[in-house]
Amino acid sequence: MPELRKDPVTGRWVIISTERALRPTNYKFEKERMQTDLAKCPFEVGNEKMTPPEIMSYRKSDTKKDEPGWWIRVVPNKFPALRMEGELKIRNIGLYEMMNGVGAHEVVIETPNHNEEIDSMPEKRIEKILSCWKDRMITLRKDQRFKYIFIFKNKGAQAGASLEHPHTQIIALPIIPITVAEEIRVAKAYFEDQERCLFCDIIKQEVSCKLRIIEENDDFVSFVPFAPRFPFELWIIPQKHISDYTQITKTGFSSLALILKRTLQRLNKTLNNPPFNLMVHTTPRENLNLPYYHLHIEITPQITKVAGFEWGTGFYINPTNPEDAAKYLRKVRL
Amino acid sequence: MPELRKDPVTGRWVIISTERALRPTNYKFEKERMQTDLAKCPFEVGNEKMTPPEIMSYRKSDTKKDEPGWWIRVVPNKFPALRMEGELKIRNIGLYEMMNGVGAHEVVIETPNHNEEIDSMPEKRIEKILSCWKDRMITLRKDQRFKYIFIFKNKGAQAGASLEHPHTQIIALPIIPITVAEEIRVAKAYFEDQERCLFCDIIKQEVSCKLRIIEENDDFVSFVPFAPRFPFELWIIPQKHISDYTQITKTGFSSLALILKRTLQRLNKTLNNPPFNLMVHTTPRENLNLPYYHLHIEITPQITKVAGFEWGTGFYINPTNPEDAAKYLRKVRL
Repeated sequence: MPELRKDPVTGRWVIISTERALRPTNYKFEKERMQTDLAKCPFEVGNEKMTPPEIMSYRKSDTKKDEPGWWIRVVPNKFPALRMEGELKIRNIGLYEMMNGVGAHEVVIETPNHNEEIDSMPEKRIEKILSCWKDRMITLRKDQRFKYIFIFKNKGAQAGASLEHPHTQIIALPIIPITVAEEIRVAKAYFEDQERCLFCDIIKQEVSCKLRIIEENDDFVSFVPFAPRFPFELWIIPQKHISDYTQITKTGFSSLALILKRTLQRLNKTLNNPPFNLMVHTTPRENLNLPYYHLHIEITPQITKVAGFEWGTGFYINPTNPEDAAKYLRKVRL
Repeated sequence: MPELRKDPVTGRWVIISTERALRPTNYKFEKERMQTDLAKCPFEVGNEKMTPPEIMSYRKSDTKKDEPGWWIRVVPNKFPALRMEGELKIRNIGLYEMMNGVGAHEVVIETPNHNEEIDSMPEKRIEKILSCWKDRMITLRKDQRFKYIFIFKNKGAQAGASLEHPHTQIIALPIIPITVAEEIRVAKAYFEDQERCLFCDIIKQEVSCKLRIIEENDDFVSFVPFAPRFPFELWIIPQKHISDYTQITKTGFSSLALILKRTLQRLNKTLNNPPFNLMVHTTPRENLNLPYYHLHIEITPQITKVAGFEWGTGFYINPTNPEDAAKYLRKVRL
């Protein structure tokens, strides 16, 4: 019998399918190589001139901007979804509302090495990437036009990546995204009712039942959520209440680097390097200290196809039961 | 400069991209043939035994159930997302809520001809398909466990189809889907405020400005919405207020068949037979006569990739401005 499960954060129901139950080896996805000619990869060492001028970098002290010597490099997206210039203007045409597309769109080149993913980097290097995200978030928030900073990663063509070289994207938005606004609305209602953070309660239940837990350390826990849209979906969340990404401390980043590395290693070994998205869900700029909202990172493998049913209803059919997914992920030897 | 636009029905913002502006010929998609060996296609004439026993069919009077002689055939889905048997039981585990997966999942085989799509059928045959959907909706609603009947079509592998032979799917759900519930919530608030149907107001504005209109007849209009998630997205909507699909009359179906055929012809010629989803948005069973909800059919070509930005924010980046899409669609010669 299939099972319907409700995600407590979004109110979205998913169908955990039994008729179509799939094990890790049943999933098929494109293993498309995107840019193997390194001479043409704009994120390669020596190709710095192929990107717009860098915004910041972590580099050897005796090297120059837009030249080799860096280990992390932040550049504007060459094809930005939003533009930095101009004021925010809202207009109406009849019942329609529109706004000029003001925002920022940056790329964090995570490594000089084309084939070095987070799961194979030394932890210290991962920490640097994670704290670089924080630095950019703090800087971008100084611009009063930007209401929300969204950090995400697309890995693999099927997850929407257009370049293979490991990178993260940062988009500063003039509006709080509807997904975050909805999460905040539900979490706020729960807090008003229960006087507790919804996410803290979820963590407590997950840590005590252990069915879906993948990795745990002093500061973070990773688990398969109870009602995930996608098979092998994962969350990484701070154990103690933190609402915003910039509240993570130096020790916190060291724990996050470790759990992110180990969680991705498990995912990559279980599904043979699947395409995935990684998304940081943090607070809007207007108030970084929310007692009812809890920072979390979502990782969604893109190994199933979204079709008319999902687009039309918001229901998702997930062919791998989350407890089974957790078992597969946990049994990987690291 | 990119433009942000707000969809008045969902409250979702989209980014109409200028940096990545794409014309119809720029879109690339898989032209994967899925099941060319007709001997193995379960929807072929002569292969009736490859599906579960038929639920209903339109067939020659001297022919038998599950034998040739049909022109439309409705069968249970062989791999159903939900199961017919059992009572609806809601359970809680701590803060989580779940339910057994009770529902129906049917397939409407639209034609005996493997390669005959709606855009190449005689209108009378399209009318039959459309009224078959109505028949199934009426029958499935008699089951008190089913709160919502969702009708949709996936065409092409990239839109999630697993079989090539033209077919529609019908799913009876024990819950009102979140997408429809959200549309109803917004539309109800608008009605309470303005004392008019939001969708009727949208139609009035579209018909008067003409910028995004594709086809119009006495009963229906098709247009590119103001803030579409996907390039070349289309809506077909009744000109006069009808909230539910079963309220379409015989004349209505004749108009709908014609506008659907012509709209799909334009879409297929403009984009060279793109993969797409078609979704019927109608009322939940509990009240079919809603003054604030308006039946509509959404058609979403799947020619762009959804990535971390869209999954994480609910924002969509649409690389073709809706007014340009409408121009391309209108200039097709039929």
